[in-house]
Amino acid sequence: MNKESLIQIKQIENIGIVSFNQISHSNPNISNLISKFRQDLHSLNLRNDLRVIIFKGFENVYSYPCPTKMLDSLTNISNFRMSDSIAAVELPSLAILHGNIFDQALELALATDIRIASDTAQFRMGQLLSSTIPWDGGSQRLPKIVGQGRALEITLTCRQINSEDALSIGLISRIINNLNLDTESINLAKQIRRASPIAVKFLKESILTGLELHLNEGLKLEADLNFLLQHSFDRAEGIRSFVSKKKPRFRGE
Amino acid sequence: MNKESLIQIKQIENIGIVSFNQISHSNPNISNLISKFRQDLHSLNLRNDLRVIIFKGFENVYSYPCPTKMLDSLTNISNFRMSDSIAAVELPSLAILHGNIFDQALELALATDIRIASDTAQFRMGQLLSSTIPWDGGSQRLPKIVGQGRALEITLTCRQINSEDALSIGLISRIINNLNLDTESINLAKQIRRASPIAVKFLKESILTGLELHLNEGLKLEADLNFLLQHSFDRAEGIRSFVSKKKPRFRGE
Amino acid sequence: MNKESLIQIKQIENIGIVSFNQISHSNPNISNLISKFRQDLHSLNLRNDLRVIIFKGFENVYSYPCPTKMLDSLTNISNFRMSDSIAAVELPSLAILHGNIFDQALELALATDIRIASDTAQFRMGQLLSSTIPWDGGSQRLPKIVGQGRALEITLTCRQINSEDALSIGLISRIINNLNLDTESINLAKQIRRASPIAVKFLKESILTGLELHLNEGLKLEADLNFLLQHSFDRAEGIRSFVSKKKPRFRGE
Repeated sequence: MNKESLIQIKQIENIGIVSFNQISHSNPNISNLISKFRQDLHSLNLRNDLRVIIFKGFENVYSYPCPTKMLDSLTNISNFRMSDSIAAVELPSLAILHGNIFDQALELALATDIRIASDTAQFRMGQLLSSTIPWDGGSQRLPKIVGQGRALEITLTCRQINSEDALSIGLISRIINNLNLDTESINLAKQIRRASPIAVKFLKESILTGLELHLNEGLKLEADLNFLLQHSFDRAEGIRSFVSKKKPRFRGE
Repeated sequence: MNKESLIQIKQIENIGIVSFNQISHSNPNISNLISKFRQDLHSLNLRNDLRVIIFKGFENVYSYPCPTKMLDSLTNISNFRMSDSIAAVELPSLAILHGNIFDQALELALATDIRIASDTAQFRMGQLLSSTIPWDGGSQRLPKIVGQGRALEITLTCRQINSEDALSIGLISRIINNLNLDTESINLAKQIRRASPIAVKFLKESILTGLELHLNEGLKLEADLNFLLQHSFDRAEGIRSFVSKKKPRFRGE
Repeated sequence: MNKESLIQIKQIENIGIVSFNQISHSNPNISNLISKFRQDLHSLNLRNDLRVIIFKGFENVYSYPCPTKMLDSLTNISNFRMSDSIAAVELPSLAILHGNIFDQALELALATDIRIASDTAQFRMGQLLSSTIPWDGGSQRLPKIVGQGRALEITLTCRQINSEDALSIGLISRIINNLNLDTESINLAKQIRRASPIAVKFLKESILTGLELHLNEGLKLEADLNFLLQHSFDRAEGIRSFVSKKKPRFRGE
């Protein structure tokens, strides 16, 4: 049964954990599996019991069978993309990376908010090795995250990057000893979870949408979101709890 | 009297030094003080005797009382913002940072051109700790300076960053021993001061406005500014002094 | 004869090597030389026997005589620019940098795709030293490559940057021992050459054009380019050769 799903979703307290499964290379059902994946991720936005989403198991993505008909039409390409669904998660998303994060696996990781990696992880955006190019958002998100010069160099040379170099260019933001990866990722998720979910959502929107706008427009967006936040229940509760040093009870409103 | 102003402005040779004062937490007059601050900074653009502006005392900004009515309307938010006035300074602006540069203090520092910091400074964009979000430009300027991935990680985790890490991600561009901070910041200001003020203004405009444009439009802007500069008095004087190795006498024209 | 050309073009296997010549400071013919340079670079896009272009000799560019009439009109500025022709090279372009890469030399290097440098190279964007500003694209490309904060600091202070610092801010992407510079640059060019030229061109377009677009538009561009690539001869050949581990025979179609 698990073999028939691209992901498993578990829950620890208010933290959702999405693990990519390994899929047989010969699986002919990939198209339906991706469709199911998109529905599953979308449903995370409707749940009030979650505060953070952890994504893991990216090292399995590299083995996914490339659907032979995939790139035959523009409709197909956008139907097979998985990164859009990850980017559309409204809660803060963490990617926990270990093993080989190559090609599409890296494209997916770039769609999360925060990437932390094992000290032994390896990264590559090497589609040119088979004379293809990134098709799941990698050519768009990589330069926005590591800069134009580095993105060109990484993709044109297809070279492997270790965790230390990935940290220094901003591809990941923390390195964790491989043995502590699960514990530390839960700890990081708990740090984020303390804030009110509505403030977290607005912050993500202000940063990600703002990057697409002229500075003046972005400043208006930031002001708008502050105005909306000011009139929410959770903001009052957040300030109350901060002043009283009591645990806040957020409603997501 | 000083307690009734957000800043003090001093002058050393052609260098203007703007120091943020500490304001009592219970000061009910914050609204008028901010209004006065905006006028004071605007007036710096009208002075011909200055070449560089140094901003310091950011560590005092964290204590500023948040006006309770501040975020009640969009008009209020933009009236209370202080970063816009800093960004509107036409002369090159240096932020000298030491102590805790937290939240709004960091938002203001991001609006200057060059940030240098003491080796003991600490940085944070931690509005989520009280379930608020940046409101003085921080969610817009931080990602443009350190990149999308790092901005999301820094704001979502609210973690503290030391000077060394701040340097490696481009948040600051130089670390100075705490004991030499004042001397070194004056030295840096003097380095910038040598160029003609009109060239400095055009360079700032070319870089900051260019970042908001498509490359082709930005290249046109750069050409336009060169054309204007070519026909200015100071450009001829700058080239003359460079060739003759004599000190230039700029007019700001 | 060589003295009458800004560049020499050589070829090693499928690699084109463009070397900037040293030009006498008093050369009155600079205007025609630049015009010839632009034609020569444009003609590289019409050749089917090349896969990568290496640019070298940037250290000679600093000595180029600045045409006195150059900035007198907007038409002249865009006629004298050399960086546009480098950026318009459709093949992957490598800049091999050693010696002093100052001012216009750095402006030109920023227009290539990948910059690697000798461990003894020095960098500077110091036009303000003579009260001028960058005019060959430097004020536009530098911030896109190293970020807004670093670009302002580098240009306003005119400070020299060594290779190690240039690497850490993303100005270059590799440091090579000065003795091995030629060998290593050929090796790097050969790495890139393995991929099909059409995939390489589309990848460059997806990254460089995508950076100018909103994310959603960029994702559409990436999908479009994948669709076009899917229907090209070379893509099928690239996949065939990857699976069969035989050397591909690309046609550039």
